[in-house]
Amino acid sequence: MQIDLNSDLGEHYGSWRMGDDESMLETVTSANIACGFHAGDPKTAFVTLRGAAARGVAVGAHVAYPDLAGFGRRPMTLPADELEAGLIYQIGALQGLARAAGTEVRYVKPHGALYNSIAFNEAEAATVISAIKQINPEFALVCLAGSPLVEQARAAGLRAVTEAFADRAYEPTGALVSRSEPGAVLHDPDLVAERMLRLAQHGTVTARDGSEVAVHAESICVHGDSPDAVNMARAVRAALLGAGVTLQNFSGADNAR
Amino acid sequence: MQIDLNSDLGEHYGSWRMGDDESMLETVTSANIACGFHAGDPKTAFVTLRGAAARGVAVGAHVAYPDLAGFGRRPMTLPADELEAGLIYQIGALQGLARAAGTEVRYVKPHGALYNSIAFNEAEAATVISAIKQINPEFALVCLAGSPLVEQARAAGLRAVTEAFADRAYEPTGALVSRSEPGAVLHDPDLVAERMLRLAQHGTVTARDGSEVAVHAESICVHGDSPDAVNMARAVRAALLGAGVTLQNFSGADNAR
Amino acid sequence: MQIDLNSDLGEHYGSWRMGDDESMLETVTSANIACGFHAGDPKTAFVTLRGAAARGVAVGAHVAYPDLAGFGRRPMTLPADELEAGLIYQIGALQGLARAAGTEVRYVKPHGALYNSIAFNEAEAATVISAIKQINPEFALVCLAGSPLVEQARAAGLRAVTEAFADRAYEPTGALVSRSEPGAVLHDPDLVAERMLRLAQHGTVTARDGSEVAVHAESICVHGDSPDAVNMARAVRAALLGAGVTLQNFSGADNAR
Amino acid sequence: MQIDLNSDLGEHYGSWRMGDDESMLETVTSANIACGFHAGDPKTAFVTLRGAAARGVAVGAHVAYPDLAGFGRRPMTLPADELEAGLIYQIGALQGLARAAGTEVRYVKPHGALYNSIAFNEAEAATVISAIKQINPEFALVCLAGSPLVEQARAAGLRAVTEAFADRAYEPTGALVSRSEPGAVLHDPDLVAERMLRLAQHGTVTARDGSEVAVHAESICVHGDSPDAVNMARAVRAALLGAGVTLQNFSGADNAR
Repeated sequence: MQIDLNSDLGEHYGSWRMGDDESMLETVTSANIACGFHAGDPKTAFVTLRGAAARGVAVGAHVAYPDLAGFGRRPMTLPADELEAGLIYQIGALQGLARAAGTEVRYVKPHGALYNSIAFNEAEAATVISAIKQINPEFALVCLAGSPLVEQARAAGLRAVTEAFADRAYEPTGALVSRSEPGAVLHDPDLVAERMLRLAQHGTVTARDGSEVAVHAESICVHGDSPDAVNMARAVRAALLGAGVTLQNFSGADNAR
Repeated sequence: MQIDLNSDLGEHYGSWRMGDDESMLETVTSANIACGFHAGDPKTAFVTLRGAAARGVAVGAHVAYPDLAGFGRRPMTLPADELEAGLIYQIGALQGLARAAGTEVRYVKPHGALYNSIAFNEAEAATVISAIKQINPEFALVCLAGSPLVEQARAAGLRAVTEAFADRAYEPTGALVSRSEPGAVLHDPDLVAERMLRLAQHGTVTARDGSEVAVHAESICVHGDSPDAVNMARAVRAALLGAGVTLQNFSGADNAR
Repeated sequence: MQIDLNSDLGEHYGSWRMGDDESMLETVTSANIACGFHAGDPKTAFVTLRGAAARGVAVGAHVAYPDLAGFGRRPMTLPADELEAGLIYQIGALQGLARAAGTEVRYVKPHGALYNSIAFNEAEAATVISAIKQINPEFALVCLAGSPLVEQARAAGLRAVTEAFADRAYEPTGALVSRSEPGAVLHDPDLVAERMLRLAQHGTVTARDGSEVAVHAESICVHGDSPDAVNMARAVRAALLGAGVTLQNFSGADNAR
Repeated sequence: MQIDLNSDLGEHYGSWRMGDDESMLETVTSANIACGFHAGDPKTAFVTLRGAAARGVAVGAHVAYPDLAGFGRRPMTLPADELEAGLIYQIGALQGLARAAGTEVRYVKPHGALYNSIAFNEAEAATVISAIKQINPEFALVCLAGSPLVEQARAAGLRAVTEAFADRAYEPTGALVSRSEPGAVLHDPDLVAERMLRLAQHGTVTARDGSEVAVHAESICVHGDSPDAVNMARAVRAALLGAGVTLQNFSGADNAR
């Protein structure tokens, strides 16, 4: 049994800090590194890439809308050619820094409002898929487990990697409970760790009505933007390793732990 | 006899236009393409790269300080690690777009205040050289002919390509006449074409005191930001071709005209 | 009979130029000046404000989403508190520059995607109205003639100034023909001038099916971003003045021509 | 005996946090509020201004070079007209938000590299002084105590308020010990509080060679960007109040504590 642990890293900007990258690089097998459009500056990305390289953590391009002030979380409607070029630009920039840091980009994970949009918006998803295929058709695309994007990406010839969220509640349908609803975000590290172990072992999560719902996930997203978040990530990692689950990036990079 | 003609292209930003890229891509053998820090947005860069690829024009990364509002012309003092990462970021971004456009980046030309600074500032030049070597030690660095940077780059193992400016007056020392002095910028296409032909054939330009001064240049920079500038670039090209000079990018890319 | 001619000015950004502000300041009675979020930089705004002050042209704050790369034309969804503070920031910045330029801001005109959105989106419109009332409840808000925003602004106690577009075709309902449809934008200066004279004199425009539709407009928006646009603006002005229509800003500023 | 305590506030940006504004607003008599060029976004500024208004803390515009990525700490050379317009823009934007928050801007304090530059660079200082006089000649300008700027501002008819830094060591000349030297920054709250009490009572600080040097300061700058910094600020405040020193903004705003 094997699964990947990914986290959003490299999210500092200039003099502002966000998250504990050092701790998270010790915890995860995949680092989604901000490319400067929603967070991250070149130096931050470079430092984070070197940290990932030193620990054998696989790196992916965490691409986003051009919206630093909104952290990429504000819905935007971009013409397809602007979105496409912007994605290639971000991935290329991270590839350049990764090469200089002694590693290489292996996958792409869209961030925030873009992630949410393409999970269901087929036209915008097609632009993202096209951008990835133009820069490297071998790249995996990390997709919300259960979303239409998974099939769309695969039909387009791209490797789609399905992802679950450690700290989120699920609907009986397998969808995430909307953040606007109470209980959408989970805070108990032990509960979360137990849920993610079940996900890895049985392919199910307990929905908010108590039912077991099938969630196929090759990767688990954990956060590291607060001490509590780091503790939760460590709890998930410990539970998985303790039960004999191999933690390894989905790209086949040799970073099993 | 052979020389390169280069020009700064891809300098639109969003809804704002600058320069006539189409005409210039018909005229030059090397396109210095803005990477988004002083000018250029991802879509503009992508369109320009496709235009260069279609015509066999070699492309280089026109890297700059992060200063869109000042067009990269305002002197800035950046910590070395920020400058270095920013340069790798810009070059990588352009490489990504170039790859998707069916071409590849072959050289680096710093822009504006950064260009002027590193011609003489050894410490900052060392940062630029280091960045280029980290991303691709095969890249050529376009340097002001006669500046200390030429030797510094070569001593560091980088290919330095020397450059003259078609529309600038020269001091008897071989330095450019400062833009703040009258007569620093030349406007007569025929005169400029004749000067550049002499440069290509004899390795000299006529300084402002009438003396002939040796200027070793492998490439000539021409501008394309106004109809007059395009005409001047065409005049230089016609004079060189008419005299049997081969126009070709210095990288050995097969784009002789 | 009296009407206002307004135009979007101060839209340069750094080294990039857009529009012929000097010519337009000779033509219009109201200048909508970009505040730096979609276009305009502080120096550009300051120069344009001085030009308006010298000619007695009334000035308004042309406020927008924070989207320089998209020229404020890309739909964005901002949290109400971010939008509100951003609008007050833009208006305040222009007020500061206007004061230093010897004039004062008299009205607010939203730009691009924000303009289009609030014409019909009541919740977002309420945020814009709230922002204006907080900074100066005497400010007029320029609104698309016939849109629900007109009544909403008035009900909130704000002066709503209705606006028609000189170069746009109208539906029989009084709505603008969508830009995505053929014939949406008019190019013949004489035709446009004749249409705007009829609007000023009779309060109607000829819709694209040939019917006359009532359009109540206190101001006509003319563009100045190309030589053709400037000619059209001049034609409208000449037709109105030639027919004895007084051109004057709606704020009662003494700038009749 | 009376002195002012000022601190740099409103330095969050988008999703990034910096400093504990709430605690500092309870501690100081003057809040230097970031205007969006080096830090701060409109919403952050608005929230901070409301907090200052609610507590009677005087507010000033903390103006800077346009350098978000470098937090305004990177030296830049701007043309005088760009710098001037940018300063008026920042002050005006903060004035707009201050008005809407129920308070008003009373002074200007340049930040970071701009602060350091104009303390000694007379030409750039003249641009700053000119900008302030154009927007409101009644505004005070906070200046490094002992710097040539103090006399220059006064000669130009501006109120110059002299400022000392609580956590910085001083040379026997009255200059700050350069940050690049060991011991330049002080960390002991009790020692700092004792030094600042002596400054307020006797107009002297103990220089790093043990000598007493005269430092005329009407305001003391304290930081709040870490829990230790907040504790130091509180210690300074408590020492001053405990010794009967009145803490009050220099503008005469009635906010004595």
